Amino acid sequence: MKVVLIGSGNVATHMAIAFNATGHTILQIWSATFEHALTLAERVDAIAIGSLSDLTEEAELIVVAVNDDAIEQVVTNLEGSNALVVHTSGATSLSSLARMKHYGVLYPLQTFSKARAIDFSLVPLCIEGSDESSFATLKTIAESLSTAVYRIDSAKRKILHVAAAFACNFVNQLYALSDDLLLKNEMDFSLLRPLILETAEKVQVIAPFGAQTGPALRRDEKTLAAHLDLLEGQPELQNIYQTLSDSIKKSHQ
Amino acid sequence: MKVVLIGSGNVATHMAIAFNATGHTILQIWSATFEHALTLAERVDAIAIGSLSDLTEEAELIVVAVNDDAIEQVVTNLEGSNALVVHTSGATSLSSLARMKHYGVLYPLQTFSKARAIDFSLVPLCIEGSDESSFATLKTIAESLSTAVYRIDSAKRKILHVAAAFACNFVNQLYALSDDLLLKNEMDFSLLRPLILETAEKVQVIAPFGAQTGPALRRDEKTLAAHLDLLEGQPELQNIYQTLSDSIKKSHQ
Repeated sequence: MKVVLIGSGNVATHMAIAFNATGHTILQIWSATFEHALTLAERVDAIAIGSLSDLTEEAELIVVAVNDDAIEQVVTNLEGSNALVVHTSGATSLSSLARMKHYGVLYPLQTFSKARAIDFSLVPLCIEGSDESSFATLKTIAESLSTAVYRIDSAKRKILHVAAAFACNFVNQLYALSDDLLLKNEMDFSLLRPLILETAEKVQVIAPFGAQTGPALRRDEKTLAAHLDLLEGQPELQNIYQTLSDSIKKSHQ
Repeated sequence: MKVVLIGSGNVATHMAIAFNATGHTILQIWSATFEHALTLAERVDAIAIGSLSDLTEEAELIVVAVNDDAIEQVVTNLEGSNALVVHTSGATSLSSLARMKHYGVLYPLQTFSKARAIDFSLVPLCIEGSDESSFATLKTIAESLSTAVYRIDSAKRKILHVAAAFACNFVNQLYALSDDLLLKNEMDFSLLRPLILETAEKVQVIAPFGAQTGPALRRDEKTLAAHLDLLEGQPELQNIYQTLSDSIKKSHQ
């Protein structure tokens, strides 16, 4: 498939590498910052372009992997294209591309950092198409990139995006708060790393409800009170401690 | 080392297996429920006892791996023992064993389930001794079980236990809430599993502060508001969403 990539951020970078590695041809890469387009284009043997008016008509697939707010602006520059145009956003409706002839969504449900390699073949790809033909084309493309392809409509994808905030963004913030707490007490975050990994590995094979442990689950009020005491003077941590302990108790009534 | 194990729960089970696998001899196992002691004793070639008055005087190390509330009661039955007596609790002071002659703490910082095998050699063991000789003995024992042994006093261990609640118990609750949210919308938790694993694996090599992603970090107020809207009618989830988004913003001011 002949691909044009719009964007050069974390998602665009990992997608470019995945397309390139699976035998697709990336013709062009555009970025709001031309130097970023150049850097990524070099990695995947593509041509960087500085203006969307330079888009090649040879493109069969245009992947719009830019910030949600920028999708609309980009799309106005793609009008008339015969390519299948997809965006990669979890929070943006399919209909944001309605000016296109053939369009869809290719949402990779993963947290990407440029510096970190990832096995893209395991990344869940949530896809949606403007019509059955676009969907079928997109499905073939998605299945060439990953073994985990799911048909998910815009309404469900938005819920999935919220769930990912809980399971990734908020989880990472809890890691960060525990790191802060250890630092303040002259201990190193590496103490918690095996625990963090095992907590995530456990729910790879069982449901999280059954994996729950700790004082809130056991309704060990003495330990819960002692923990809140230890957090005295840190109202933010006390509030999060109380809120999530209450949530555990409520889930395991 | 000749070991007696008091307890038969998750921690006791994994410790028994680790002691047995590293060449120590478990002489006896006691549990409040005799059948549980029997089951575990069979796994590690030990003798189950139904009464603490049957404790052998041959024991060199007695490991008290019972619920925090039961430690005191158990300890009254060990008075006069010449063995090194250690408990395994994160939240209990060393001084809870002060009636013993030689005592210490051997706290394994990990989440254990009976049904799940674990590589005990990677489990951080936090140790503390009543005197330098007890500490030295305990250090040798701990290093025979794990490559990750840390000297941590009672005050710091209690902080570590709180940090573990954030990094494990609360994290797992966030997994559970995201599972609920997907279920309610007819999607499967398996969609989130690669994301959950990558989030935990990322912080094995970098600090969580630098690993943060998502709309709260980007101060993408449009997406934050849309997410809260999608959680309408679920005040508990909305509260957690708001609390943790605020926490991310505060950390990344």
